[in-house]
Amino acid sequence: MAGSTYGTIFQVTSWGESHGKGIGVVVDGCPAGIQLSEEWIQSFLNRRKPGTTRYSTPRKEEDKVEILSGLFEGKTTGTPISMIVFNETQRSKDYKEIASYYRPGHADYTFDEKYGFRDYRGGGRSSGRETIARVAAGAVAQAFLQELGITVEAYTKKIGPYEIAENTDYKKRFESPLYMPDLNASQRAEEYLCQKMQEKDSVGGVVECVVNGCPAGVGEPVFRKLDAELAAGIMSIGAVKGVEIGDGFLAADATGSTNNDGFIRREDGTIAKSTNHAGGILGGISDGSPIIIRAAFKPTPSIFQTQHTVNKKGEEIDIAIKGRHDPIIVPRAVVVVESMAALTVTDLLLCSMTSRMDRIKEFYHR
Amino acid sequence: MAGSTYGTIFQVTSWGESHGKGIGVVVDGCPAGIQLSEEWIQSFLNRRKPGTTRYSTPRKEEDKVEILSGLFEGKTTGTPISMIVFNETQRSKDYKEIASYYRPGHADYTFDEKYGFRDYRGGGRSSGRETIARVAAGAVAQAFLQELGITVEAYTKKIGPYEIAENTDYKKRFESPLYMPDLNASQRAEEYLCQKMQEKDSVGGVVECVVNGCPAGVGEPVFRKLDAELAAGIMSIGAVKGVEIGDGFLAADATGSTNNDGFIRREDGTIAKSTNHAGGILGGISDGSPIIIRAAFKPTPSIFQTQHTVNKKGEEIDIAIKGRHDPIIVPRAVVVVESMAALTVTDLLLCSMTSRMDRIKEFYHR
Amino acid sequence: MAGSTYGTIFQVTSWGESHGKGIGVVVDGCPAGIQLSEEWIQSFLNRRKPGTTRYSTPRKEEDKVEILSGLFEGKTTGTPISMIVFNETQRSKDYKEIASYYRPGHADYTFDEKYGFRDYRGGGRSSGRETIARVAAGAVAQAFLQELGITVEAYTKKIGPYEIAENTDYKKRFESPLYMPDLNASQRAEEYLCQKMQEKDSVGGVVECVVNGCPAGVGEPVFRKLDAELAAGIMSIGAVKGVEIGDGFLAADATGSTNNDGFIRREDGTIAKSTNHAGGILGGISDGSPIIIRAAFKPTPSIFQTQHTVNKKGEEIDIAIKGRHDPIIVPRAVVVVESMAALTVTDLLLCSMTSRMDRIKEFYHR
Amino acid sequence: MAGSTYGTIFQVTSWGESHGKGIGVVVDGCPAGIQLSEEWIQSFLNRRKPGTTRYSTPRKEEDKVEILSGLFEGKTTGTPISMIVFNETQRSKDYKEIASYYRPGHADYTFDEKYGFRDYRGGGRSSGRETIARVAAGAVAQAFLQELGITVEAYTKKIGPYEIAENTDYKKRFESPLYMPDLNASQRAEEYLCQKMQEKDSVGGVVECVVNGCPAGVGEPVFRKLDAELAAGIMSIGAVKGVEIGDGFLAADATGSTNNDGFIRREDGTIAKSTNHAGGILGGISDGSPIIIRAAFKPTPSIFQTQHTVNKKGEEIDIAIKGRHDPIIVPRAVVVVESMAALTVTDLLLCSMTSRMDRIKEFYHR
Repeated sequence: MAGSTYGTIFQVTSWGESHGKGIGVVVDGCPAGIQLSEEWIQSFLNRRKPGTTRYSTPRKEEDKVEILSGLFEGKTTGTPISMIVFNETQRSKDYKEIASYYRPGHADYTFDEKYGFRDYRGGGRSSGRETIARVAAGAVAQAFLQELGITVEAYTKKIGPYEIAENTDYKKRFESPLYMPDLNASQRAEEYLCQKMQEKDSVGGVVECVVNGCPAGVGEPVFRKLDAELAAGIMSIGAVKGVEIGDGFLAADATGSTNNDGFIRREDGTIAKSTNHAGGILGGISDGSPIIIRAAFKPTPSIFQTQHTVNKKGEEIDIAIKGRHDPIIVPRAVVVVESMAALTVTDLLLCSMTSRMDRIKEFYHR
Repeated sequence: MAGSTYGTIFQVTSWGESHGKGIGVVVDGCPAGIQLSEEWIQSFLNRRKPGTTRYSTPRKEEDKVEILSGLFEGKTTGTPISMIVFNETQRSKDYKEIASYYRPGHADYTFDEKYGFRDYRGGGRSSGRETIARVAAGAVAQAFLQELGITVEAYTKKIGPYEIAENTDYKKRFESPLYMPDLNASQRAEEYLCQKMQEKDSVGGVVECVVNGCPAGVGEPVFRKLDAELAAGIMSIGAVKGVEIGDGFLAADATGSTNNDGFIRREDGTIAKSTNHAGGILGGISDGSPIIIRAAFKPTPSIFQTQHTVNKKGEEIDIAIKGRHDPIIVPRAVVVVESMAALTVTDLLLCSMTSRMDRIKEFYHR
Repeated sequence: MAGSTYGTIFQVTSWGESHGKGIGVVVDGCPAGIQLSEEWIQSFLNRRKPGTTRYSTPRKEEDKVEILSGLFEGKTTGTPISMIVFNETQRSKDYKEIASYYRPGHADYTFDEKYGFRDYRGGGRSSGRETIARVAAGAVAQAFLQELGITVEAYTKKIGPYEIAENTDYKKRFESPLYMPDLNASQRAEEYLCQKMQEKDSVGGVVECVVNGCPAGVGEPVFRKLDAELAAGIMSIGAVKGVEIGDGFLAADATGSTNNDGFIRREDGTIAKSTNHAGGILGGISDGSPIIIRAAFKPTPSIFQTQHTVNKKGEEIDIAIKGRHDPIIVPRAVVVVESMAALTVTDLLLCSMTSRMDRIKEFYHR
Repeated sequence: MAGSTYGTIFQVTSWGESHGKGIGVVVDGCPAGIQLSEEWIQSFLNRRKPGTTRYSTPRKEEDKVEILSGLFEGKTTGTPISMIVFNETQRSKDYKEIASYYRPGHADYTFDEKYGFRDYRGGGRSSGRETIARVAAGAVAQAFLQELGITVEAYTKKIGPYEIAENTDYKKRFESPLYMPDLNASQRAEEYLCQKMQEKDSVGGVVECVVNGCPAGVGEPVFRKLDAELAAGIMSIGAVKGVEIGDGFLAADATGSTNNDGFIRREDGTIAKSTNHAGGILGGISDGSPIIIRAAFKPTPSIFQTQHTVNKKGEEIDIAIKGRHDPIIVPRAVVVVESMAALTVTDLLLCSMTSRMDRIKEFYHR
């Protein structure tokens, strides 16, 4: 239980450090017969690759994925899919210095307390590079969900004080270097970001994720509610400090008469809701409406201003962090949020196949 | 994986429905040798008992707990602790009607989709009464944490627009019928609540929870981060729509220079932080500062106003809910938040004993 | 991870001690819509009830089961099924003495080492009474399997040197007080048993279990092989010291040419095997043939002869055990073996629904 | 739950196929601070490497392991240890033919039933090469256990009718090409094996494993007994058809008076047992004596004699298997048994640290 494995049926095991030989992931429990290729995985990884805009670390990494197992003639075999991305531009010398002190906002101190020492090169295991494993695995989950007509799409909702307008068409997110689909807001966020970069500071923001096409009935009613599992998955992304479902914290200010979503009957006779304050989940179980998730990201802790901290000897010192760092985590984290949501929905969707005897009988008497 | 079990080492299994014979819980993995009694458990259950103020359902239930196993001569034996609260005042006839339609904001529709039918009496398994199991188990976790000098305390932070002042002493929470430690804010929240009750409406709010005394090093660095597990535990409480750690969504608006917590050296030579924006967790691992968690609760979905919905035949209808319902969930949920936090910290604290070879050797060569 | 929970999808949590208030079990993950009653559960429990023959402890217990949750109008609801059997004839005074020393062959010493002390009354948690939980849960699994036309049937294969003849019709097992379907062997085993009882000694034996109707494809190919999970489930029954699948240890003496089972084509075009040395499992996955499992039970450790041991002060002493004990565990354990096999097959059968994308699509596009 | 992950705290995830790019394993939950190197891992892998004696497949593979993560300056960091062995001599053309039919004794048929198709090259995922992952992970467990003075040692006990003499010193196992410590028996087994090879047949056998130095108190009392977990681990090795603890099936023939192990007091005041029929486990918990496990291996199913079977079209055919195959699995499996035992004991030993409040307090108030 060192917690590098995620999921119950669709199980993902992440490994690797920022400046080790590579980052990898094993996806176990992926159903057999899904078309999958390195190109597909790569298309997701490219969205988190550094060095593509001025708002991300200049560390140039191709982050090229290799699939090592679990495929046969282009299809998943039902056995573990092992994927690896080798690390390429490791400038470990940048990190020699930080071995001796505790960077504010980083996991240096807590790793030392937990393990007695740490691989300090580039954050080691607590580096953002670990999310390569999540995105590669998430891409497999997306291939699975696609077969069922389910989409999982995330985008930047807010950066600093700049938020996208309501009802923005999030399909436009790829037109913005910040994955912010309201191009007006995106423009202003860029300006804000540039200013903060000049001030040697960093910025936070909010990512929103929408799951469309998930059938009603996914999620378990008590501890393993769909929203609880989504919260765990999203909060497990480094730098996330808050998670909301549907109206989230706004629901706390509402009253029952405004927050309740009435049920309606669609023209085709199926049941839907007239509003979606609940964000697609009732009692921990999907209700067939779009599932809405939001994640609050803190500003990148690595800033170039002088900061006050303590070294390993326990002496208070002033430090100035060097190296290559993103001034904001949010744009590259968009695909990570998508991945964790896709992994979670996939896992619970598979778990939910066993809830009804009538359907199990149908399944086995095929 | 129907998800009624929570935790890896300290494992809690909840069972029971609102109008069945009772609600119960099995706590497995509790260490041997902890003093425990029904009185201790009861003192926590009394805080969620209905009918104690005008702001909770008038359903009168003693909710008396009985310990059925796992104790010997007043101490835990290391084997499963089974606890039960028998249901007493079941007025199932109130619920006959709701069997036929889907209440807005409730899990009626999603249960029917998931299971094909449902025990409609009082919400069945999705009733708030299920939290009896969580509170009874949480009380066991609190007994464990007390032995290590760790406290877990929650209180009402906000109801509708009324929020407690900063730096309120949360120990005063028991002086307010709403568990709101700022008695001035509590007074105004009561007035607001009364008004909404007259309007046949309901109200939401925010609960905050503080964990003191947790040593640094608890939590795992990737998927099973302490904050991720807390988010899952808290979000698994019915009606919770958002979870924050430390500054939460405010951190998304901040910059690195204001959000980073610098490390300092205490007079006794130990290391601390000058601020606590991170809420006691860095890289998913406790840093020794107080752990701060917040939960947003939606308004009670059961309101007495007429609502529009659909019945099981798929016809749109207008309904008026009867029965006994809380106009606000928050005050009774305070101890539930506390319980889920206590369970989560306990479990990860036990898991964290195995992270260092030097300490394992010390342990086994005792 | 104190290990009182069994299974991944179909999860069983056992609790209770021999001389506590009762023994119980929570079955989580049972699909909704299965007809179930206390009478059905009781019919399985009656087969392990003491006091029905001269070969079991004279402790008279009705072992009457009560279902506390998870049923609605006679059907499972998909939520946890909690069951309890209250303990009735607790003669704890018989056990005062054994508190002070370690009985040979019992868990007294290991419990003290593990937990620091123990509930010594009647073996506490390590008592055979714990199997009530397994049998009650197993009965739920049997109800599930029955819906799919799968049977799980165990019987006594051997007691001391007396073994049933090959090709014995195991349906006759209920005609023997020892559940030994070869009535001739049963007769001789009874005589052997009576002799050993007169010598104040106890006897061991072998139980065999056959699963019919399990479809091919159940079980996972690496660690969670069907045979591996069966081995764990059966070996977790107290007093079991060996487990075999198919030819078991005899396969170690065989050669490939005699041990391999050739595939054949049935008249209806389906594929079968000409022999079944493999016991219905190939590569950890069911092959459609009957699944054959055997368990070796050691003799009851509680015997009335004088034995040499050590007391808690570390002094060597001679002891003579009093109380009520079975001279043989095997006959009452038959239904326990059946139960563990039923639980294991049920769990893996549910897990196996997710192995193929084509079937998942069919399932969700119903 | 496709079951490629093993363990709760010390978690091992295996991946890879016989003729894919490689075989690998991720070890998560290994404590920080253990000295580890590729040389150490390799020394275990070399014991299962093919082509070293005439009794194993002539497929020449170096099976060279590479550690990709989890080490820093020669020590484990507490984060996942990823290891890989690239496949080298893949002669896939040998396997084209077997794609079309079901080999007796192999998993071809069950894989097709479970997944709809299979990677038929060299057995794919069900190949014995998968055990590379187990042995590499087992070597990490052995490094852990060594720090606590615990040894896990296996050897060949029996091949065909030839068994080692009682009280054979198993340290001599490395002097026999069959890892059979009684060199006289080994000689006769070799002759028997040669004869069967000439007859184009294959042979089975029994492996025994001894764990020394395990403290009392390891294992959980109900479902996750030490013996139950060992049984699962050992039975999950391909070709194992039976598992015994201590006297195993012989205990079924014994009486209580001969099978019980009396407790005695050692000179130094500690408690021991005068005999060890129980094989070091009482009530599922280690008792401080050597832990004794035995595994029955069936003969290699791949034999060069003509066999009768069915092809994918359902036609009965006669086949003659080609390719490179071991005439016996046992000698190369010795280190695999050792590895699964080491993994199991390691995991339960870590789990067992949380059973007593007094020791937990001591641990945290260090």
